Amino acid sequence: MTVTADRLGSLRLELARQGVAGFLVPRADEHQNEYVPASAERLAWLTGFTGSAGLAVVLPDAAAIFVDGRYTLQARNEVDAKLFEQCHITEAPATEWIAANLRPGEILGYDPRLHTMPEIERYAAAAGKAGGNLRSLDRNPLDAVWRDRPAPSPLPAVPHDLRFAGRSSEEKRGGIAASLAAAKTEAVVLTLPDSIAWLLNIRGEDVPYTPLPLCFAVLRADATVTLFIEEGKLPPVTRAFLGPAVAVGRPQDFGAALEALGAGGRRIQADPATASAWIFDRLKAGGAAIAPAPDPCLIPKAAKNETELAGARAAHRRDGVALTRFLAWLAAAAPGGALREIAVSDQLERFRREGEHFRGLSFPTISGAGSNGAIVHYRASEASERALEPGSFYLVDSGAQYLDGTTDVTRTIAIGEPSPEMRDRFTRVLKGHIALASCRFPQGTTGSQLDALARHALWQAGLDYDHGTGHGVGSYLGVHEGPQRISKVASAQPLVPGMIVSDEPGYYRTGAYGIRIENLIAVVPVETEAAERRLYGFETLTLAPIDRNAIAPALMDDAEINWLDTYHARVRETLTPLVDPATAAWLATATGPLG
Amino acid sequence: MTVTADRLGSLRLELARQGVAGFLVPRADEHQNEYVPASAERLAWLTGFTGSAGLAVVLPDAAAIFVDGRYTLQARNEVDAKLFEQCHITEAPATEWIAANLRPGEILGYDPRLHTMPEIERYAAAAGKAGGNLRSLDRNPLDAVWRDRPAPSPLPAVPHDLRFAGRSSEEKRGGIAASLAAAKTEAVVLTLPDSIAWLLNIRGEDVPYTPLPLCFAVLRADATVTLFIEEGKLPPVTRAFLGPAVAVGRPQDFGAALEALGAGGRRIQADPATASAWIFDRLKAGGAAIAPAPDPCLIPKAAKNETELAGARAAHRRDGVALTRFLAWLAAAAPGGALREIAVSDQLERFRREGEHFRGLSFPTISGAGSNGAIVHYRASEASERALEPGSFYLVDSGAQYLDGTTDVTRTIAIGEPSPEMRDRFTRVLKGHIALASCRFPQGTTGSQLDALARHALWQAGLDYDHGTGHGVGSYLGVHEGPQRISKVASAQPLVPGMIVSDEPGYYRTGAYGIRIENLIAVVPVETEAAERRLYGFETLTLAPIDRNAIAPALMDDAEINWLDTYHARVRETLTPLVDPATAAWLATATGPLG
Repeated sequence: MTVTADRLGSLRLELARQGVAGFLVPRADEHQNEYVPASAERLAWLTGFTGSAGLAVVLPDAAAIFVDGRYTLQARNEVDAKLFEQCHITEAPATEWIAANLRPGEILGYDPRLHTMPEIERYAAAAGKAGGNLRSLDRNPLDAVWRDRPAPSPLPAVPHDLRFAGRSSEEKRGGIAASLAAAKTEAVVLTLPDSIAWLLNIRGEDVPYTPLPLCFAVLRADATVTLFIEEGKLPPVTRAFLGPAVAVGRPQDFGAALEALGAGGRRIQADPATASAWIFDRLKAGGAAIAPAPDPCLIPKAAKNETELAGARAAHRRDGVALTRFLAWLAAAAPGGALREIAVSDQLERFRREGEHFRGLSFPTISGAGSNGAIVHYRASEASERALEPGSFYLVDSGAQYLDGTTDVTRTIAIGEPSPEMRDRFTRVLKGHIALASCRFPQGTTGSQLDALARHALWQAGLDYDHGTGHGVGSYLGVHEGPQRISKVASAQPLVPGMIVSDEPGYYRTGAYGIRIENLIAVVPVETEAAERRLYGFETLTLAPIDRNAIAPALMDDAEINWLDTYHARVRETLTPLVDPATAAWLATATGPLG
Repeated sequence: MTVTADRLGSLRLELARQGVAGFLVPRADEHQNEYVPASAERLAWLTGFTGSAGLAVVLPDAAAIFVDGRYTLQARNEVDAKLFEQCHITEAPATEWIAANLRPGEILGYDPRLHTMPEIERYAAAAGKAGGNLRSLDRNPLDAVWRDRPAPSPLPAVPHDLRFAGRSSEEKRGGIAASLAAAKTEAVVLTLPDSIAWLLNIRGEDVPYTPLPLCFAVLRADATVTLFIEEGKLPPVTRAFLGPAVAVGRPQDFGAALEALGAGGRRIQADPATASAWIFDRLKAGGAAIAPAPDPCLIPKAAKNETELAGARAAHRRDGVALTRFLAWLAAAAPGGALREIAVSDQLERFRREGEHFRGLSFPTISGAGSNGAIVHYRASEASERALEPGSFYLVDSGAQYLDGTTDVTRTIAIGEPSPEMRDRFTRVLKGHIALASCRFPQGTTGSQLDALARHALWQAGLDYDHGTGHGVGSYLGVHEGPQRISKVASAQPLVPGMIVSDEPGYYRTGAYGIRIENLIAVVPVETEAAERRLYGFETLTLAPIDRNAIAPALMDDAEINWLDTYHARVRETLTPLVDPATAAWLATATGPLG
């Protein structure tokens, strides 16, 4: 009997003990984090699947795992198909599987802390179709049988210095509290750790890649806060930093606190898009009048202040030094032909670690040579990695967490001489990158309105890429941050000054090569003579050469060539004083005019 | 006592008789038509306001009219401010006015035939806030006191020949009926006259500018139809044309038919976005299981078939002849300086009337000289019209209904020598027009994704325009047709081949001049070597010179100049054989290369 069969069997026994037929196992924690702590890796423990998104449904005689197109192959390798039917999460969704497999009268259990209300409504409808029912379980049955479940991280939450944060927590709390008071709302429940980290100017080490302290909080209209966090995670220095307006509660008391909060029909705000069903259950149980609204920290957190922008620029100078040293090293080492993906990305990480304020990577590096570059969410392993061979592209998408900023950059490097088709595609991706980076737009414009600018040059040749053009980025916080984004998906969120987004069009030829050119860009006001509208544009933050050896100059117009030459001159002038002479010499060549 | 005061007084008496305090008077008919029959001009009868959008609310001691920014000035001129408070429909919405002015316990009445369900839900919430109630009235109290209310149009519905429609009604009905059957839906209620006209291949003359027969219909899953239409509007030829699968009912029997339709919980489809609350009331009263869904005629009607596209091309050739004769005439007559807006647009209409299959204008012509061109929805009157003066722009936005197609075109003509600023703005508008007309995009792209292409050149200078870039256009039907459009407003409707939209960026300098360059363009498949996606683009239908005298060539790039020269060559080659020698000579000059 395999480990997985054993685990699945013990979960089914526990389900029977709790009087339910089935259970939902999402790849989610209590905060809907992108990166979850080891103690929340329930899906991986049960099924073996280690991807970043997915869901398992367990019934007495059947079980299935649902993953998206990125992970179809990986799930096939990691999950025992005899135990879990493998399904595409949108083409054969879990709701349909439940409707077809749950039997009349059976109860499907779920952990209300791990699902949002809209999810639960969909699963309840599916169970209803089958003649069964969905039931909220007080005690997660998987946790009951997961004997060696990792303990929560003991690492402390630490103050995030005002010289990086730019605004005091008092000021931030005051601003949001005033709008709560104006809306006659008693309090807001905050469930996103990055919102709380931003609001209280603290950081932590509880999940990989993002400096989050896992916690919940309640902010009241009088600007006081109760922070619910594991005991021991607040050393005296952090406790003192939080000040007297922040009370501290134990996580196990959070539910009772929510019930007390809304007593007497008080108006309590929570975000149905991100707060779990359990939060709403507790508020309702206490008698609250629930005011559903987006997390009020999202917009002020996304619109970086001047200090955060200055920090982002400084972090990107350091990141640019590391990248440039790396690219110079690669240019010298690659012709030997012996370089492989993992060693190359390790070298990049070594250069980054030497930078001041470096705290770690901001996500797992994508280091893809040749055909591996065409796998959008590729992660190199010893089994999969390829050598960097002449006539190929090498794609590296990486980023770091610095105390003063978060970076995310992709460069595609020609190893040897690219084919005319590769040059054509690279140049179209670059034209899209430039079109977005250089555009101006009036106040009120959303990222979805700008998305086509980055795709236009590819579209003209009948080409496209199947991912968004840009995601929001935090300030020493999540490398993926909302609500701003540049995407085909319709959005009502205007871009406002201070928001940082990525600009990362790409092109992928399966089995051959992948191209992506990514800089981070910040929304900035633009002053133009005769402008009749409040006008915004982008400031490029990322500083690293774009490989001129991969460009077909004949496809570029004068304005595009001018943009590239100006960008390269800025990279050269900024970084030359910060690198060693050999790197500086390489940089001088790499950033020369295209014309 | 004025006529309006008298009418308002008699309405209030009737409201008291019916036992309600107030009443909603929208500028809408029973079909949510854009152009309404004279018998539905209730808002104009009550208030004097003749604009195309608005709402009045009448209470015992107060009344208000709500109009949008286009109509603020017009409402001030037309409506007695002592009788009706004047409000901006979005800045001081009717819901807030109702909440503030309805008294506790009072009842606000509405005619359920004139409002959609979402509207009624908003007004009910507003009345509830005031402690009052909203009530549906069986008999419209305004109609009860409108003694000289025009009779419905007696003009007949006529067959729309297959050589224009391209697909038989049987085929259209069969296609939609099959999808009803597949969804286990008994029938769909059709309330949009243009949907019914398309489905049954009939046309009429019941409203201005759009060849609609006012009617309702029910299409069943067995492909049979009951058409509810005034007796006498179906002459024998039309009745025979409809065939045996189409039954005919009287409009006064429509309600009972809806109640019978859903009896026994049968599944009946209707569109909450366009069907009135009365439709849903009747279906519910009959016990129907209502399936809310968009009108199933919308997409097949919007995606024109090959015959309709061929008709559109032919109609645009005739329209292009009229426009070109007009522009040649204007070029000769304008320097005299005595031309005025109304006489000029009358001249254009005269040329159009000479075209084969001409049936009338498709909307009121916008003929704006100088500063009047900056008023987006301008309509010339003897009091407002200006002369076409040297150094100004003349903007003319006009269109026609032909049996084989509907046209809509805007040209902006330099009278004498435009200023450098005017040339700059004209050229930016033209660049936007060309960017949209020449773009290619993958299957699945929506109009909102393309909108920024048309604004980009203006945005770079801090300029923009406050209207959509393009609206859908029907085939000898509405000049404004959904669901396709090119707009900042987010849309989930992909552009599909055969859809016709306008491409009409503009620029308006209040008090000085207006610019708009509009062609109709059709979505067409594009074959490109090496294309990896199903690729679409646009075919320009409109054929008329764009004024080269207003262009600043230095702002145009080679691809843009090539687009313009190629378009002009096509206009010249197509129209020269169709116009008189003097017009042909002018056309040869007007369409010469820009370079």
